[in-house]
Amino acid sequence: MTIRLAPETTAATTTHDIVERSIALLDRVRAQPPLVQCITNSVVVNFTANVLLAVGASAAMVDIPAEAGPFAAVASGLLINLGTPHAEQREAMLEAALSAVAHGTSWVLDPVAIGSLPVRTALAAELVAHRPTLVRGNPSEIIALAGGGAGGRGVDSTDTGDDALDAAQHLARTFGSVVAISGPIDIVTDGTRTLRLANGDALLTRVTGGGCALGAVMAAFLGAAADTASTDAASTDAAASAGSADAFDATVAAITAYTVAAEIAAERASGPGSFAAEFVDALAKLTGDQLRERFVLA
Amino acid sequence: MTIRLAPETTAATTTHDIVERSIALLDRVRAQPPLVQCITNSVVVNFTANVLLAVGASAAMVDIPAEAGPFAAVASGLLINLGTPHAEQREAMLEAALSAVAHGTSWVLDPVAIGSLPVRTALAAELVAHRPTLVRGNPSEIIALAGGGAGGRGVDSTDTGDDALDAAQHLARTFGSVVAISGPIDIVTDGTRTLRLANGDALLTRVTGGGCALGAVMAAFLGAAADTASTDAASTDAAASAGSADAFDATVAAITAYTVAAEIAAERASGPGSFAAEFVDALAKLTGDQLRERFVLA
Amino acid sequence: MTIRLAPETTAATTTHDIVERSIALLDRVRAQPPLVQCITNSVVVNFTANVLLAVGASAAMVDIPAEAGPFAAVASGLLINLGTPHAEQREAMLEAALSAVAHGTSWVLDPVAIGSLPVRTALAAELVAHRPTLVRGNPSEIIALAGGGAGGRGVDSTDTGDDALDAAQHLARTFGSVVAISGPIDIVTDGTRTLRLANGDALLTRVTGGGCALGAVMAAFLGAAADTASTDAASTDAAASAGSADAFDATVAAITAYTVAAEIAAERASGPGSFAAEFVDALAKLTGDQLRERFVLA
Repeated sequence: MTIRLAPETTAATTTHDIVERSIALLDRVRAQPPLVQCITNSVVVNFTANVLLAVGASAAMVDIPAEAGPFAAVASGLLINLGTPHAEQREAMLEAALSAVAHGTSWVLDPVAIGSLPVRTALAAELVAHRPTLVRGNPSEIIALAGGGAGGRGVDSTDTGDDALDAAQHLARTFGSVVAISGPIDIVTDGTRTLRLANGDALLTRVTGGGCALGAVMAAFLGAAADTASTDAASTDAAASAGSADAFDATVAAITAYTVAAEIAAERASGPGSFAAEFVDALAKLTGDQLRERFVLA
Repeated sequence: MTIRLAPETTAATTTHDIVERSIALLDRVRAQPPLVQCITNSVVVNFTANVLLAVGASAAMVDIPAEAGPFAAVASGLLINLGTPHAEQREAMLEAALSAVAHGTSWVLDPVAIGSLPVRTALAAELVAHRPTLVRGNPSEIIALAGGGAGGRGVDSTDTGDDALDAAQHLARTFGSVVAISGPIDIVTDGTRTLRLANGDALLTRVTGGGCALGAVMAAFLGAAADTASTDAASTDAAASAGSADAFDATVAAITAYTVAAEIAAERASGPGSFAAEFVDALAKLTGDQLRERFVLA
Repeated sequence: MTIRLAPETTAATTTHDIVERSIALLDRVRAQPPLVQCITNSVVVNFTANVLLAVGASAAMVDIPAEAGPFAAVASGLLINLGTPHAEQREAMLEAALSAVAHGTSWVLDPVAIGSLPVRTALAAELVAHRPTLVRGNPSEIIALAGGGAGGRGVDSTDTGDDALDAAQHLARTFGSVVAISGPIDIVTDGTRTLRLANGDALLTRVTGGGCALGAVMAAFLGAAADTASTDAASTDAAASAGSADAFDATVAAITAYTVAAEIAAERASGPGSFAAEFVDALAKLTGDQLRERFVLA
């Protein structure tokens, strides 16, 4: 199966277009599992791998020097998450980012808790200069990455999404990246287009890795979208045949799948412990109809 | 809301006093989430973060040199757990402990599996000399930290709580620390006061991190208690207004909340796998009435 | 209780023999919990520890230089898993392997994702030369370890079990190791005997660590079997008295217990998230009758 998303709809002008494109990309992830390399923090690495497997992707946590670069050359997508940036990981991150850029691998930068913490803040500045395909963070992190503010309180943001929109658009235009600001309303911008997505559940913030694992899912959808972009027009799947998807579309699709699954899981959960398992189950069974029924823009 | 625990009850002479003080501190954790820095082992780091979020605290696993120290200066509480003490973590632990002491941040030392393992045993000796607010460990670890015994069998204790009481009181008097000895009966001493707490369930020992995550919860309650200690007498919450809580009270409150939640979870679980999720759910929904109904001294 | 498995049945000629020997070893694990040292990857370390506890073993993730070697001397079994081989872990792995060999500790090598990734591939070649008691891997990893192929796609195999059988038998004869090839059919060979085991469920491949944790369980069963081998003929438990078990038997028993528990869990799960918890519960409650009812050779 190949996917073609119609060029004229890439501006994502309607809810219907966004949902159908998201469903097509989710189908693509499942049909041709992207191999997602994660260089991520020790707190969330297990949850992240399980979330990737649930959404249909393959996970490979290749995060040491001399392996991270070669692997980024062949991976479908790459996540670099700065949550616990030990020295070997920092070296691996830079190696992987350079390799991803050189080989056209889509990559996501998640600048966790930057601002006042010096090591990761300097590292994030160095990494973003390599022009990640996508930057995701909470409002405080996005503002800090753009050179403003002093960051949040640990991993918690002290700013709102709209506080960070100018910073996000500035980053997007400077580095050619899509920028996703997390929050009750997720904001996605590429400097020109901006969407506000309203699905999700607060329980996602009560499970560690609720945000970090989304970065990995974004890398999976970016990998799937990159495949569509390089695929010929001939498609055997009429429903999915709607033109090529770009990084903006992939980011929106990843957030949509992720946050709708969170809503479904929240309805079944008794608290954050059961939510984590329900969320993985919901992701694994997520259907196009569930996305159609629940998707909502802010 | 501010909390004042009556000075005359700090000796915790009655079950009623202990429970009400514990409830007041749990409310405090939830109302003013303490930011808990954890430098902990790779095995339990995810579970620890989820437990902290469930109890109402914020978690930040800032465990690299050059970041651990500055963060400990602003964190509400700090956990140093020696479970997998890699070189960078060891450096970060010392940096964080010094910073915590310098800035008055309450901190917990959990000397996991010390005794015969040389690296962590030497490190624990160095750390305890900086006078942690609280030391928690199993009986073998407490005995080893006090300079006796050869430690347990890996992470399992080969001694009983009462075997370790002399060692605990010696540590408490030498370093000015509260000492908590884990076991079917949890023992808390500050060298003068000693309490034996009888809640809990054996399933806690069947989930990795069942003990380690309690160290993080203790750091959260210490952070909340430190806030009460520096709060003026004026309180807007009559029920919670009972004087200032000290490290001894905070330790007892953390154990109480944790072990009562474990009992509730055990009643709902079918084994250690479901117990882990039920425990997180139970912590998140724990009520004062549940503590009142179940709390029991040995 | 001591276990004697009858010498004349060590060739495991019948399904009945295999099952009864597996049950005897499971009972042994629970009666005399082997202390299993794991030097394993950051992704699965938590799940691995919980699986070990569920099966009845004790887990100790001692993975730093200067501690890994001394601990391997006293552990019942050792797992070396190359999933995220950071520099300190690599040093600890070599130290532990040498110590295990010197002290007769059974050890398992899991050469995760070797083939094209240079650091771990070289390390696996160095480790296997120390003659592990058991090597487990997917077909691509086994082929790569034997010097053929280029490995799989990250952690996923691109070969089938029977593709890897020649490589496995070559490894077994060269290094005196039992070799277990994972897959829908698990193949165990010591170069002479070969068994194909058909239990399990595809959900095991949807949970990260589904394979890696089995390596730890194998180390637990090897530890239990080593105890039986050194135990005198006198047994107080008639049911379990059936002669000494060797590494081949222990490997088969570990796979049997693990994959039967997976089947039971799969029947109760709603997806990979709930499966992980159900699997731990099922392992903890696994009975001999469940093994008798479900065990099947391919």
